[in-house]
Amino acid sequence: MNGNPTSQVLDIRDHIFLIDCGEGTQVQLRKYRVKFSRINHIFISHLHGDHFFGLPGLISTFQLLGREKELHLYGPEGIKEAILLLLRVGNSWTSFPLVFHELKETEPEVIFEDAKVKVMTIPLKHRVYTNGFLFSEKHRERGLNMEAVARYRIDKAYFKNIKKGKDMVLGTGEKIPNAELTFDPPDPKVYAYCSDTAYDETKVPLIEGADLLYHEATFLTSEEQLAAKTGHSTAAQAAQIAKKAGVKRLLIGHFSTRYKDKTLFLEEAGEVFPAAELAEDGKVIEV
Amino acid sequence: MNGNPTSQVLDIRDHIFLIDCGEGTQVQLRKYRVKFSRINHIFISHLHGDHFFGLPGLISTFQLLGREKELHLYGPEGIKEAILLLLRVGNSWTSFPLVFHELKETEPEVIFEDAKVKVMTIPLKHRVYTNGFLFSEKHRERGLNMEAVARYRIDKAYFKNIKKGKDMVLGTGEKIPNAELTFDPPDPKVYAYCSDTAYDETKVPLIEGADLLYHEATFLTSEEQLAAKTGHSTAAQAAQIAKKAGVKRLLIGHFSTRYKDKTLFLEEAGEVFPAAELAEDGKVIEV
Repeated sequence: MNGNPTSQVLDIRDHIFLIDCGEGTQVQLRKYRVKFSRINHIFISHLHGDHFFGLPGLISTFQLLGREKELHLYGPEGIKEAILLLLRVGNSWTSFPLVFHELKETEPEVIFEDAKVKVMTIPLKHRVYTNGFLFSEKHRERGLNMEAVARYRIDKAYFKNIKKGKDMVLGTGEKIPNAELTFDPPDPKVYAYCSDTAYDETKVPLIEGADLLYHEATFLTSEEQLAAKTGHSTAAQAAQIAKKAGVKRLLIGHFSTRYKDKTLFLEEAGEVFPAAELAEDGKVIEV
Repeated sequence: MNGNPTSQVLDIRDHIFLIDCGEGTQVQLRKYRVKFSRINHIFISHLHGDHFFGLPGLISTFQLLGREKELHLYGPEGIKEAILLLLRVGNSWTSFPLVFHELKETEPEVIFEDAKVKVMTIPLKHRVYTNGFLFSEKHRERGLNMEAVARYRIDKAYFKNIKKGKDMVLGTGEKIPNAELTFDPPDPKVYAYCSDTAYDETKVPLIEGADLLYHEATFLTSEEQLAAKTGHSTAAQAAQIAKKAGVKRLLIGHFSTRYKDKTLFLEEAGEVFPAAELAEDGKVIEV
């Protein structure tokens, strides 16, 4: 394969985000039963084949499936010209809107935001213009303590304000502090996706404390010079970034096909950062 | 998948020709152990995704494998712009020459020829400019009857002329007719590839008597109108073409994914042309 085709599906607060789209991604999506109709946002890190040659075919398939909804594509400048040319030479088109968000900033920027989720770019250091992506959940509302609201006979009409953290004043004038009526919501989760990139500490503040960091590890330390030359990282370097950023867990992937034994990557990363795991085809990770 | 990705490998007289290159072709090539280094000529019928979205990735893989030999690409005008743009947006290049043979004729033309093989276009009727391809072996030399040449004690130096069909005059003045010294060579084989196309009899004279015809059969007769509308054929129509052209065998494929039971295609074609077979993933056919 051309390198090792990369694609990830992120299921976050009502969104299915597709991150990168190497050749054959649509086959994998079918295999793992991802609903095509739920994909509305695709984030492309850079325009190397193993990260985006599956995109034209996926767009064609959306068309065949009768899609009508907008499809948002985030990727480096040039992605629009490439996709539109491929459609044009085939005298093809889409009956759904293709909304391109072309990226060219070299500083982190917010590229998607709604009430529940925010997506920022993580500028990376590779042979071509490349961005990683930081996916952050926003704070959720507090959880209602149903037992407590029943005890105080509080009407449904007040639930919305209570979940926002407000105290409750009963008809009797008695004030019930919010803490008695609600539970803390789960902490918002943060996922950082960093591929492809050379070792580069400038991104550390941005990804600090992330719940999960995916970081490419194309090579082992024995090929550290080759990694630097080709704009890639070693497993040890990926682990260094994880350690410096104090993330909770590290997922490494994008291994060069030159290595038969992937466990060497885990061993190398694990020495620096124990909470490391290998990205594998079809692997599902709960954060 | 976007339609049904198509790719065929033709092993003909020292050449490995790749015909069309849908997404995922390189995965299939690896699966069936086709040597990438033996592929020097790729023929693309038309620029719909299911016939060429695997080409950019295959070219990238050739680059990764350190290819240095020329790669010849035959396909509709526009293929060069598309491939070069995809390389350019990724800041990529090939260290081997990419030789584009862009096609725009609407009459059959010879696009490849050497001492052993000739390739002609078969203009097809589809929604975009499309060519099928006619692969013809040239006549082989006559086979040497080793027993006979030994009996007459004929020196090796004469073998070349004998295989060309010449008679032999011995030192004694005795003339040995060529027929005594040689066997008839196998008949040169002809393979006609026709995808994608609406029903169109104009190609019949061109493919007449072919040893094997691959003809698309996207639909069944029940969807004949849809076939006409989308520039495709039914299984019965593919069989009609085979019958009219008097080919020896028919291979049908490119079935719409709407049909679960592929044997219906075989039944429908078989009623018109009994020597019909289904094209299937990884199927190997000896001609």
